[in-house]
Amino acid sequence: MMQKVTIIKVGGAVVESPDTLNDFLNDFVKLEGAKILVHGGGRSATAMAERLQIETKMVEGRRVTDQNMLEIVTMVYGGLVNKNIVAKLQSKGLNALGLTGADMNIIQAHKREVKHIDYGFVGDVDAVNQKAILQLLTQDVTPIVAPLTHDKQGNLLNTNADTIAASLATALAKQCEVTLYYGFEKDGVLLDANDDHSVIHAITPKEFDALKEQGAIHSGMIPKLTNCFDAIAKGVKSVYIGHISNINCPQKGTNLCG
Amino acid sequence: MMQKVTIIKVGGAVVESPDTLNDFLNDFVKLEGAKILVHGGGRSATAMAERLQIETKMVEGRRVTDQNMLEIVTMVYGGLVNKNIVAKLQSKGLNALGLTGADMNIIQAHKREVKHIDYGFVGDVDAVNQKAILQLLTQDVTPIVAPLTHDKQGNLLNTNADTIAASLATALAKQCEVTLYYGFEKDGVLLDANDDHSVIHAITPKEFDALKEQGAIHSGMIPKLTNCFDAIAKGVKSVYIGHISNINCPQKGTNLCG
Repeated sequence: MMQKVTIIKVGGAVVESPDTLNDFLNDFVKLEGAKILVHGGGRSATAMAERLQIETKMVEGRRVTDQNMLEIVTMVYGGLVNKNIVAKLQSKGLNALGLTGADMNIIQAHKREVKHIDYGFVGDVDAVNQKAILQLLTQDVTPIVAPLTHDKQGNLLNTNADTIAASLATALAKQCEVTLYYGFEKDGVLLDANDDHSVIHAITPKEFDALKEQGAIHSGMIPKLTNCFDAIAKGVKSVYIGHISNINCPQKGTNLCG
Repeated sequence: MMQKVTIIKVGGAVVESPDTLNDFLNDFVKLEGAKILVHGGGRSATAMAERLQIETKMVEGRRVTDQNMLEIVTMVYGGLVNKNIVAKLQSKGLNALGLTGADMNIIQAHKREVKHIDYGFVGDVDAVNQKAILQLLTQDVTPIVAPLTHDKQGNLLNTNADTIAASLATALAKQCEVTLYYGFEKDGVLLDANDDHSVIHAITPKEFDALKEQGAIHSGMIPKLTNCFDAIAKGVKSVYIGHISNINCPQKGTNLCG
């Protein structure tokens, strides 16, 4: 039996406003079938770092995570953001369970090697424990995954939420029909960043290459789309990028084609 | 089949020193059979509150939990302390899973009514989802429980770790042979608080009453022991109070008799 699983990734913006979060969680509850939520929380972590007078350093959009910052992301992602989402979903009748990669060893990673930049306690994913995740899904438990992994040596590692969502999707794709949805503040991948109506509704790897060359797709969108095409190449059935309010109608966003 | 389950509760002191924590976790891993760890974290929460310039108010040894303090305990108990323990146990080969009461709805509570004192977002336990916990134990998952519950209305609640341990123990006692161990910095209940060798190795409710009257047992020890006798009355097989380094030899501490 091929189980259907939907994986939704949402960024830090969703969790910042209680109203936006509430609307999103209502939509998430409505989503039929087995599902997993992967959340970010970068903005909340940066705000907490400021309150603790700890400097946030970003290199190419990625957070440099020293010991102090690791403490902050562990608290904010694993505690504040994750547990609030879990409590809210439980109030809406969904049997949510908050997880980091360390819990039930669901995502093992290694500390990123220092090449030009030392990102500190940042993890690159090595393995997903799909057996444990499938067991939870079969028991009608909905995993809520914080962007933290561990190295099986006792260390937690800060890990990009987009990457976590893609890793879960590709691991589950071996046994399930997986839909992966990246929710953000735009309606999809835009042909013209200044025109919200210029959503590209379907994009192939070839078209992606052409749009990169033209400069229509640039900066943060490039790693995001590369992640998506990679997931499709690895067997994920459907990958969408769209507005967080459209998770129940993903066709409104951008559909990545294999 | 009557499953044996051991529940260990440790306070905030254990998790403060990395060496003490590591020794304790090694002992915890060695403990045979199904087990659950309930941890505190009050000292870490107080330290974090100080760093955030938020005042910690305690009344009769209990933390007054306003919105700001709720954020702190959610971060510190549910994130920092809990996830570090989980990652460390995973490195030692134990399949740990960090939980608050909201996760899988394992512990539902209600906000304590305001009588003389408004404790704020503090929870009194209403129900334990023993089915979910037993399912995890059967799958060789070891729950690591943070002292947070939820009200099923979307709110997390700060809840005394001793009470959580006793609630879990009494709920599981319906179907399991439960041993409950309260670990702290003393060797057990002392007849003379200034003499570490005066451990009372066994105590009955009658003796407890007499020692209270004599003043030999006082302050924080009274609610702790009351909790313990209550657990025994509700079917928990064995209850011990002892040093955190003696969880594998509970007889060294104080055995509460029914």
